[in-house]
Amino acid sequence: MRVKLASSYGFCFGVKRAIKIAENSPNSSTIGELIHNAKEIDRLKKNFNVKTLKDVSEIGKENRLIIRTHGIVLSDLKRLQNSNKEIIDATCPFVKKPQQIVDEFSKQGYDIVIFGDKEHPEVKSVKSYANGANVFVVLEVEELRDAKFGKKIAVVSQTTKKIENYKKIVNFLMDKSREVRVFNTICNATLQNQDATKNLAKDVDIMIIVGGKNSSNTKQLYLIAKKFCNDSYLIEDESELKLDWFKDKKNCGISAGASTPEWIIQSVVAVIKQI
Amino acid sequence: MRVKLASSYGFCFGVKRAIKIAENSPNSSTIGELIHNAKEIDRLKKNFNVKTLKDVSEIGKENRLIIRTHGIVLSDLKRLQNSNKEIIDATCPFVKKPQQIVDEFSKQGYDIVIFGDKEHPEVKSVKSYANGANVFVVLEVEELRDAKFGKKIAVVSQTTKKIENYKKIVNFLMDKSREVRVFNTICNATLQNQDATKNLAKDVDIMIIVGGKNSSNTKQLYLIAKKFCNDSYLIEDESELKLDWFKDKKNCGISAGASTPEWIIQSVVAVIKQI
Repeated sequence: MRVKLASSYGFCFGVKRAIKIAENSPNSSTIGELIHNAKEIDRLKKNFNVKTLKDVSEIGKENRLIIRTHGIVLSDLKRLQNSNKEIIDATCPFVKKPQQIVDEFSKQGYDIVIFGDKEHPEVKSVKSYANGANVFVVLEVEELRDAKFGKKIAVVSQTTKKIENYKKIVNFLMDKSREVRVFNTICNATLQNQDATKNLAKDVDIMIIVGGKNSSNTKQLYLIAKKFCNDSYLIEDESELKLDWFKDKKNCGISAGASTPEWIIQSVVAVIKQI
Repeated sequence: MRVKLASSYGFCFGVKRAIKIAENSPNSSTIGELIHNAKEIDRLKKNFNVKTLKDVSEIGKENRLIIRTHGIVLSDLKRLQNSNKEIIDATCPFVKKPQQIVDEFSKQGYDIVIFGDKEHPEVKSVKSYANGANVFVVLEVEELRDAKFGKKIAVVSQTTKKIENYKKIVNFLMDKSREVRVFNTICNATLQNQDATKNLAKDVDIMIIVGGKNSSNTKQLYLIAKKFCNDSYLIEDESELKLDWFKDKKNCGISAGASTPEWIIQSVVAVIKQI
């Protein structure tokens, strides 16, 4: 079987970077899950003795602490920096950007609007940089209906959101303030994976999408693949592959969700190549 | 006849201010038409000897020069300031704002997008403050399709444009650059006149709209009035009023386009009150 990987798939830049940092920091502990993938976290624990703490309250005698991809709330960061512990920062650079923007423009008297999910650790960390300014965290325009704004607003987005919804928020704010300073902090990784899956699915007989069946972005990749290649399948790992899927097929395309480790994908590739 | 004026009508703040400046500057000359209303310019000429020059090339021995509401191109302004002539600035403060923004942010390395009409004197003056930065003057998103942008864009609007179209431009730019700094420089005067006409038309038996029959914003006021009060009429001055329009009517509402001088409106009011 000829196998072709999508031109963009699996872990994004920030996740890959964080894993490399963790591998280079054996016997450390991450504050919260480094990334949202249990298998990969197990691997890091087993191979590099990188433990996972629930949050800062669990920090005890650990001396090497890793800040996870989503960042950390500023007050916690300061407390850690004032301790004698080694702090290893695996915050995604694309998450640092909105943190810096919120910090800088809240100091300059801007109201802050964050387009994102209040409960997401990334958004919590970004919000914590607001220096006491007015901050609104919203997913929908409706949540801003009763908000009062000053003369200038700085706006950032959670890195994984869709730009269409972000535009609606910005349009609304243009009626509310004389200056709206919009930072496009959306990360393109997810969109790139979707585009690459679509392009690959058009060119092959069969598509295999690797990723968690509960993963929203993986399911979306599967639906995109299915639209352009009828013989598309979603699997969590190579154990789920069925031989009869490949009957009369010559070209197999493979893509994977943003939470799927490369080593799982490579195991799938290896098995399919033997068919 | 009971007469009620719309809560907002006629000349906007910047035009009223410019006329007051001209009245306080007898024997002066404006560079270009002070405002876009021939009757008012005739009046200023007759009563205050305020002349109108076509442009800077016509300046001769004149010693008192008035800059019109729409502003003036920066290079011309500098030339005038370096002459020994008295310069009286009647630029609308709402036009000065985008001039200042374009000046400040072009110096800070922003690309500049101006939402407006290339040929309009206001837009020409605003554009001239760009210090050699990349400047795009557009009315439609399509005009930006092939444009190349840097990492940050500052955006201003001609003061008299509609915000809906401005939002489309901004949405487009959000895909093109990491930072889009939007200044809502649209003046609310026209929209306020429209709102006030609508509200008044609901409450009266007859509506009289005063303004040039070629004036787009006046015609729009007439259409709005007609929608809410069937007996609505558009006149240029009191000589066009017809008595039979007012038969069985008790309450007359009056509004006027942004280019209609107050003295014409007051003549109309005086005649209708006598009915």
